[in-house]
Amino acid sequence: MRDVAIIGIGQTKVGEHWDTGLRHLALEPLLAALHDAEMERVDALYVGNMLSGELTGQEHLGALVADFAGLRGIEAVKVEAACGSGAAALRMGYIAVAGGMADVVLVVGVEKMTDMLGPQATSALAMAADADYEVAQGASFVAINGLLMRRYMYEYGYRQEDFAPFAVNAHANGMNNPYAMFHISVTPESYARARMIADPVNLMDSAPICDGAAAVVLAPAEWSPSSSAPVRIAASAVATDAVALHDRRDPLVLEGAALSAYKAYEQAGVGPGEIDLFELHDAFSIMAALSLEAAGFARKGEGVRLALEGEITTQGRIPVATMGGLKARGHPVGATGVYQVVELVQQLRGQAGANQVANARVGMAQNIGGSGATVITHILERA
Amino acid sequence: MRDVAIIGIGQTKVGEHWDTGLRHLALEPLLAALHDAEMERVDALYVGNMLSGELTGQEHLGALVADFAGLRGIEAVKVEAACGSGAAALRMGYIAVAGGMADVVLVVGVEKMTDMLGPQATSALAMAADADYEVAQGASFVAINGLLMRRYMYEYGYRQEDFAPFAVNAHANGMNNPYAMFHISVTPESYARARMIADPVNLMDSAPICDGAAAVVLAPAEWSPSSSAPVRIAASAVATDAVALHDRRDPLVLEGAALSAYKAYEQAGVGPGEIDLFELHDAFSIMAALSLEAAGFARKGEGVRLALEGEITTQGRIPVATMGGLKARGHPVGATGVYQVVELVQQLRGQAGANQVANARVGMAQNIGGSGATVITHILERA
Repeated sequence: MRDVAIIGIGQTKVGEHWDTGLRHLALEPLLAALHDAEMERVDALYVGNMLSGELTGQEHLGALVADFAGLRGIEAVKVEAACGSGAAALRMGYIAVAGGMADVVLVVGVEKMTDMLGPQATSALAMAADADYEVAQGASFVAINGLLMRRYMYEYGYRQEDFAPFAVNAHANGMNNPYAMFHISVTPESYARARMIADPVNLMDSAPICDGAAAVVLAPAEWSPSSSAPVRIAASAVATDAVALHDRRDPLVLEGAALSAYKAYEQAGVGPGEIDLFELHDAFSIMAALSLEAAGFARKGEGVRLALEGEITTQGRIPVATMGGLKARGHPVGATGVYQVVELVQQLRGQAGANQVANARVGMAQNIGGSGATVITHILERA
Repeated sequence: MRDVAIIGIGQTKVGEHWDTGLRHLALEPLLAALHDAEMERVDALYVGNMLSGELTGQEHLGALVADFAGLRGIEAVKVEAACGSGAAALRMGYIAVAGGMADVVLVVGVEKMTDMLGPQATSALAMAADADYEVAQGASFVAINGLLMRRYMYEYGYRQEDFAPFAVNAHANGMNNPYAMFHISVTPESYARARMIADPVNLMDSAPICDGAAAVVLAPAEWSPSSSAPVRIAASAVATDAVALHDRRDPLVLEGAALSAYKAYEQAGVGPGEIDLFELHDAFSIMAALSLEAAGFARKGEGVRLALEGEITTQGRIPVATMGGLKARGHPVGATGVYQVVELVQQLRGQAGANQVANARVGMAQNIGGSGATVITHILERA
């Protein structure tokens, strides 16, 4: 097994790209990543995407994107793991390079969600849940997270407003990220005034429906170009859990996230204390809290307390959503896992501008499919 | 890179499984394959599937199938490459084992297409074509293959009835396969009477819409159990081409299939002359003809002639569809590539019953996404 580095990154501003088709959306960050990597040759392309079939009537994105990018002929497939599809595609690329099957691999996460009406995207997203036992009961993803958040508040005695720091932090960081969807400030007061979506989940607790694409280029670590600091993939791990919430031993413990994180810690030879920043899967505030707990940054029931104590900001003990996270940068589902890793690379290279985490050397990204059923964790390290 | 073997196989009878859900459908061959492999431990699961989101409202099959199979926690994702999804999943499993990332990998191909009305499956299948430039013009897959077949007849002077041997051979072989959907004999006469679907493609030129699932267990070659002859993966290759037919240099040359086959020949150190049988992607008769040509078994324009000369039967020079192929065994799209490989293993183990190809030692399977845009080729070898 060879050491693998991320030698190029690219990203598109997340938003509503009404005038841009799926393949065009994928192309921009793909070319930017190749340019950043100073690389023209590619052995394989892995595309992370969840909803192109349902929302744009197009499957078969591997060949489609490869051809449109001028890479006709190369190996190309799509990888799907619900909202974890982006990092799952990265994981495949990592396996191919680490194992010696390929030298240069492109990973592109792309999702186009806004050509459709809101209700359709919501019902498409529900395909990440258990169709027979959750969705058939009318549970959308917002509803499932509403149940989780309500239970968390009940078990640990939190109030709804205690969740505000997740949105406040994400939006404060998003303000300085030109690729973020939102450049609006959120305060505890505006959080409290936000429209309720699925009580107790309000608008500021939820990541938006949007379009976006991001890309990275992987290669053996010794191939890193001279122009940017090499960033090594120190760990790559996937773990699963039950898809349906009611099948879990404890709905407030993301066992898949814990398993995935601890597999990654073992591979990288580090523990939570050595992680300088954590790009977590804050699709909903409750997911951010549970992720912090599962990955060992807070004890059970104390993820929200960590946020209340100011420890998740770029100056805190464990900075999260440092470029805006799913909430403010946006959550184009199949692309999100790649955005997270692109942002980690920005931080580890020292290219994160006003949001730079001081002396960031080791960063972790965790991309979650469904309400915790597929969890992909990557730990990156500045060489 | 380690040598990889297929140490277990499992398959479900292809058909209309109205009483079986998606996860149940996947479970039966999965357990059969583990049993066949004499294996309980699994490191990862790759699921090949194309249409579960569109047709059953369920994405996220990696975690769903893993959990239902009692494998909660393991690494599991879905791989999609249109009708080539099954072999694309196998390819991922191969990369993981060959590169040393995993020791024991389960690959399951599953597709459930018959819960819906015919038109819906046809429009879902069209998502393998180019949504913007083919499907928007009203071209379904049957129509695209109709155009191809018409052009082939025009260029090379064939008549429609010259394509009959593909259906005759597939159905003759399917008669002896208990897992095949159809156990009906097709003659040149019944072929000539078959209902026209998209002129000149008739019902006997087209593979059926159906449900099915198949599974294999991969492991390092030295792990093969003693109870069955070890079958080694001698080559695994993927290549792509333009998704839209009109973007190809010559619509009658499957460049992706040729590239994929020749990459595989190079890896395995064999040529077409050393392949004892070829499980090709006969979704349509014209695809069978073009595949034979692309893989070097017939010259350009002579694929149909090869069939007319009787060379594609189990006694011929290059037996194809030896257990019924996509036409008679059936074509549950995301499962097909795994069925093909399961059948190769049956042949190489000498377990193919009345359809046994004498002294089969090297077999090739080729699974095609779309009208030739993603082509995955595997060459298996009896050790």
